[in-house]
Amino acid sequence: MTRALPIDPAEVAWHVERLAHFGAHGATGVWRTVYSPEWTAAQQQLAEWFQAAGLSVRQDAVGNLWGRLEGSAGCGVIATGSHVDSQRPGGQYDGALGIIAGLLAVKHLRQTYGSPRRPLEVVSLCEEESSRFPTAAYWGSRAITGQVRPADLTEVRDFDGVPIADVMRGVGLDPDRVAEAVRHDLDAFIELHIEQGPFLEDANLPVAIVSGITGMRHYLVTLTGRADHAGAVPMDRRLDPMAGAAEIISGVIGNAFRLGRPAVTTVGQIRAEPGGRAIVPDRVIFTVDARHPVPEQRAELYRQHESLIREVAARRGLRLTLEIMLDIDPAPSDPAIMALHEASARGLEIPCLVLPSGAGHDSQRMATICRTGMLFVQSRDGRSHTPDEYTAPEHAAAGIAVLAATLHGLAYDE
Amino acid sequence: MTRALPIDPAEVAWHVERLAHFGAHGATGVWRTVYSPEWTAAQQQLAEWFQAAGLSVRQDAVGNLWGRLEGSAGCGVIATGSHVDSQRPGGQYDGALGIIAGLLAVKHLRQTYGSPRRPLEVVSLCEEESSRFPTAAYWGSRAITGQVRPADLTEVRDFDGVPIADVMRGVGLDPDRVAEAVRHDLDAFIELHIEQGPFLEDANLPVAIVSGITGMRHYLVTLTGRADHAGAVPMDRRLDPMAGAAEIISGVIGNAFRLGRPAVTTVGQIRAEPGGRAIVPDRVIFTVDARHPVPEQRAELYRQHESLIREVAARRGLRLTLEIMLDIDPAPSDPAIMALHEASARGLEIPCLVLPSGAGHDSQRMATICRTGMLFVQSRDGRSHTPDEYTAPEHAAAGIAVLAATLHGLAYDE
Repeated sequence: MTRALPIDPAEVAWHVERLAHFGAHGATGVWRTVYSPEWTAAQQQLAEWFQAAGLSVRQDAVGNLWGRLEGSAGCGVIATGSHVDSQRPGGQYDGALGIIAGLLAVKHLRQTYGSPRRPLEVVSLCEEESSRFPTAAYWGSRAITGQVRPADLTEVRDFDGVPIADVMRGVGLDPDRVAEAVRHDLDAFIELHIEQGPFLEDANLPVAIVSGITGMRHYLVTLTGRADHAGAVPMDRRLDPMAGAAEIISGVIGNAFRLGRPAVTTVGQIRAEPGGRAIVPDRVIFTVDARHPVPEQRAELYRQHESLIREVAARRGLRLTLEIMLDIDPAPSDPAIMALHEASARGLEIPCLVLPSGAGHDSQRMATICRTGMLFVQSRDGRSHTPDEYTAPEHAAAGIAVLAATLHGLAYDE
Repeated sequence: MTRALPIDPAEVAWHVERLAHFGAHGATGVWRTVYSPEWTAAQQQLAEWFQAAGLSVRQDAVGNLWGRLEGSAGCGVIATGSHVDSQRPGGQYDGALGIIAGLLAVKHLRQTYGSPRRPLEVVSLCEEESSRFPTAAYWGSRAITGQVRPADLTEVRDFDGVPIADVMRGVGLDPDRVAEAVRHDLDAFIELHIEQGPFLEDANLPVAIVSGITGMRHYLVTLTGRADHAGAVPMDRRLDPMAGAAEIISGVIGNAFRLGRPAVTTVGQIRAEPGGRAIVPDRVIFTVDARHPVPEQRAELYRQHESLIREVAARRGLRLTLEIMLDIDPAPSDPAIMALHEASARGLEIPCLVLPSGAGHDSQRMATICRTGMLFVQSRDGRSHTPDEYTAPEHAAAGIAVLAATLHGLAYDE
């Protein structure tokens, strides 16, 4: 970076540090679950910052916070932002940095260029991480895109079994009005986010233009064999689902390795039943998370996984239940927005990578109603979802400068 | 079997079915945890049967029930029996059949031969299965052999956290008198038990003479890697303990297969932390149960397992904690008792196998204070620890006939 940035790294760092006070967890962690007092206070702080930056502020029916800079022409809205909720605990950057980025970018544009042609909005989305409701991932962007069903209001429950509708009422939101959160007037949504992976650090670059968000599947694999005494039944007479599970887990991880970057596969949950140390298990249940951004290779990854799982179960005489719990389509970035990102970075003399996103983001939901684009900034050690996550203020400021230039292109030039 | 048996299969079946009333669970299951009302009622029923068979009855300090037929000479006691507690749920045969076998064998001997030279005792042992106290396996035989420490009385707790001393008081036992359960006057202990494996069924034989009880180890393996985002971190940059666990599980199961019968290895418990579907685990913790009755081959099995576990962890850069939670020495059967079993079976024209026991038994504890021997009777489908367990009355009666002849040899002839 040889040119002076229009965004001050110190101002970025100050905002990150201040917002992290709400739900602070240890020295660098954040524990901010949706609709909690910490969450309410964080949204209140953002509302004050939005107002101070000259934006008109409103909270929508599910609690997303919007700050709007009015445009002179009646065209579709250009929006930017990310989520304000955190993992339990998470860090100061995942989500929060994207809101601060939107705020500082729009504030800079208003100060430098005055009113845009198209309305510019910054959004603090209310629940992306399933921070409190295991099945409420992307709750804020689902509401905006009309993907909350009325039944969700009672069926989505927190870890204590309380329906989300009741929790919403507790913070002054009316669950019967959720449909009012739907937006039909968005033209584009741009999200800045920490990378959560090692590619930018490996390349020693601050910013990446995201080519699209990966498609992914979660399988739930249940292998049923026969419980037997761990001492009295010889190996050759067992129907041991643990032996099958181990072979499948090695196999699916191996499939992703062989297909090569950016194919990934993860087994994060596993349980053996009945779970006695001296009992050959009757059942082993585990999850398989498989992702690839390229449609043909993703299909190949899924095909290899399913074929391996079925082959191992059949060969070992184990009963198999293979359930697809989650199947998310990829969201390719809008080519025009990617081109604008590239031109913006070139103009600022900020060297960039182009990367697919292996993680899911609110942008994936927003892509169902408008054009989307994403920017990544470098994550130290590729870490996220931990108090250890860190992004250098200079890298964040570089990303925000690219974001601002892109928003300028969309809202002032078009 | 060409000779008429001295034991009536119908009488065996009647006793099995009656005893299973206490803690009946479904049509064929038993749920009888130590010191429960069902357990107390079962011991009461056995006391009545012991008395009716002409035995003098006493309960010892931990609740083992003893029935004694006095001997004419002042020599060491010949004892037989097994445990009255069950799995949750278990079946009607595991443990219970060994008590009924002792009762019917001694009853037959008294009716046929009158008083023995040596005292004969039948024992219903109070807690073998960890039925209620996870760390109280072999509680009854541990008390008899002086292997209960005073601290155990408060440290051994049931699933609700209640110390065993309090539960004992609730059924009228004085925990301060546990040491009084120790026996110094036993010469031999013979236990009849269901096989719990498939060898007798495969050979189509009713009875096996047990050559000894296997030695076994329980390892607790903890592999620590690094939690990473399941989408954003490429395969080649992960420190995934699940990949290591799968390789180790396949490996230890493979080691037991390659060493061949009777080597066995079981992974019955496994947990991934933090346990999110979309998070590469930070830690995977699992157990390895490894057994072999032959000392040199057992040492080789342990050596192969430990070397594999260390090699995989080191190669994958995972931090390893390898803990030995349980390490039980094998208990070879007394050669003179085995010879007597063989002569008894031959005399009855009952064909036998000679088998090691892959499962642990009270006999293993009793072997620390006296000579021991065991007989197995056929288990249908090799099943145990389930309501499905079943032993045909004719097979049980054949085993009891061999037991009676052996007891005759030990208590009347010697």
